[in-house]
Amino acid sequence: MGSVLHTVAIVGLGLIGSSIARGARTYGLADRVVAVDRDEAVLERVRALGIADRATADLAEGVAKADLVILCVPVGAIGMAAAELAPHLKPGAILSDVGSVKGSVVAAATPHLKPENPFVPAHPVAGTEYSGPDSGFATMFQNRWCILTPPEGTDETAVATVTAFWEGLGAIVETMTPEHHDLVLAITSHVPHLIAYNIVGTAADLETVTQSEVIKFSAGGFRDFTRIAASDPTMWRDVFLTNKDAVLEMLGRFNEDLAALTKAIRWGDGDALFELFTRTRAIRKGIVAMGQETAEPDFGRARPDPKAN
Amino acid sequence: MGSVLHTVAIVGLGLIGSSIARGARTYGLADRVVAVDRDEAVLERVRALGIADRATADLAEGVAKADLVILCVPVGAIGMAAAELAPHLKPGAILSDVGSVKGSVVAAATPHLKPENPFVPAHPVAGTEYSGPDSGFATMFQNRWCILTPPEGTDETAVATVTAFWEGLGAIVETMTPEHHDLVLAITSHVPHLIAYNIVGTAADLETVTQSEVIKFSAGGFRDFTRIAASDPTMWRDVFLTNKDAVLEMLGRFNEDLAALTKAIRWGDGDALFELFTRTRAIRKGIVAMGQETAEPDFGRARPDPKAN
Repeated sequence: MGSVLHTVAIVGLGLIGSSIARGARTYGLADRVVAVDRDEAVLERVRALGIADRATADLAEGVAKADLVILCVPVGAIGMAAAELAPHLKPGAILSDVGSVKGSVVAAATPHLKPENPFVPAHPVAGTEYSGPDSGFATMFQNRWCILTPPEGTDETAVATVTAFWEGLGAIVETMTPEHHDLVLAITSHVPHLIAYNIVGTAADLETVTQSEVIKFSAGGFRDFTRIAASDPTMWRDVFLTNKDAVLEMLGRFNEDLAALTKAIRWGDGDALFELFTRTRAIRKGIVAMGQETAEPDFGRARPDPKAN
Repeated sequence: MGSVLHTVAIVGLGLIGSSIARGARTYGLADRVVAVDRDEAVLERVRALGIADRATADLAEGVAKADLVILCVPVGAIGMAAAELAPHLKPGAILSDVGSVKGSVVAAATPHLKPENPFVPAHPVAGTEYSGPDSGFATMFQNRWCILTPPEGTDETAVATVTAFWEGLGAIVETMTPEHHDLVLAITSHVPHLIAYNIVGTAADLETVTQSEVIKFSAGGFRDFTRIAASDPTMWRDVFLTNKDAVLEMLGRFNEDLAALTKAIRWGDGDALFELFTRTRAIRKGIVAMGQETAEPDFGRARPDPKAN
């Protein structure tokens, strides 16, 4: 791993920002971690948790001495944050982010930056359904992928610094264009979230099946969708607004496939169903083999006593 | 819990059947467990695992002495199995099953049975994505719901016996009509599985994103769908063929909602997205509160080293 940074400023101390702060300290990646958040309640928690050397609501002051500034705010807020902090960056300071969409982030942030401040957009593919500074943890990025999408011509030393920082947090770094990132994430993350949100909404609106029944019998598959559909609403609203084209493209394909599947059910075409259901097993095996999941059956996880309620 | 049965026969020793066999022994629910399977390889495993007192391919002989026969075969095979075994049941012997669809099961099995053999259909809402006799475990049904759907007029002593058996396995028993069961499960289990199969299929067919990328970056949400989409193909083909009406009804609603959501994305209606994403969080809280899931973040589960491959 690379050299230790002097000061890292983290803007936005939610799930991801607070995990980076914890990790930077745990793995000794910076001499000093500055936490910047406009929410005084979040700053209070950061101070109480002791996960930064300094916690401030003053963006200008917070980023002034930083060698690396990481924006951990919802994708829709990155442009404004970049505009506000850009004049206060010291020469050579690197700006990065953790947004789940990259094309719109590059477009929103780049115009505000001076040429001496390289922008190295990053997206750690990790998270949980919880939000806020209390939900982060230092090992969040261990063995998870972190995708960097530096625009063409980005200073190579800056890319190397950000790469070393993420490797220091335990991540495996991969580089691609912002456009390709947005397509890949549309299918592996954005559309799955949208579908999960959608089916949970559909279930909530039924008249023939009560909400209590939906909750009771959720172990048959629905439960896993509700976990995804419990993710942060602001973050996900911004993802869909800023990665519209790729999401609509992938949703279109999903819908075509679902129409064909619906037709197979209506006409009783068991062979078509069996063929798809067999094919999808192979992808699962690939995920388990690549270590992005354990093979342990998830339905069998620890269960508190439902009668306790 | 109720009295111990003399002989329980389990027909079909897959994930669920083998879990019942293990549980019946572990919790002392029967003096004798007979395993019936037409697949000689499965019988070999049953014998090697020692999870039944007798393992046979002969259905007639296997069920002849049973007080309770539980069909653990795919839903589409229940009618034929019932027809074949009905003449060999002793007077008063109870037939049950574990199918994920109940209306079609009642229609398929009932006509073959003599009046002295009550049919008490059951559906334990539990499972994993694995199949076969090696993947079962005795605690599979602990604190899980088991839905009984006895047709009107079913002998009450028989219903009580099956209830006691499932309670002995640790399940919480609830009774409803077959029709209502099929609606509830269509939304909590069948449509979620269909959607998971569908999106995994969509992802596999892309040209712009490689399958290796889909697998690599699956931690962003897709991974959870692949687990569901790795479930047994034969079982799920039969579910969709036999619960067609309820699945198509729920799919129709899902599609209407998804169309509205797609429109909100296309027109940049952030408020509509935010409203739905907030509402769906509440359902998740209900599931965690009811003990059908732990609150522990699932994304943080144990991760083997991906570099090991």
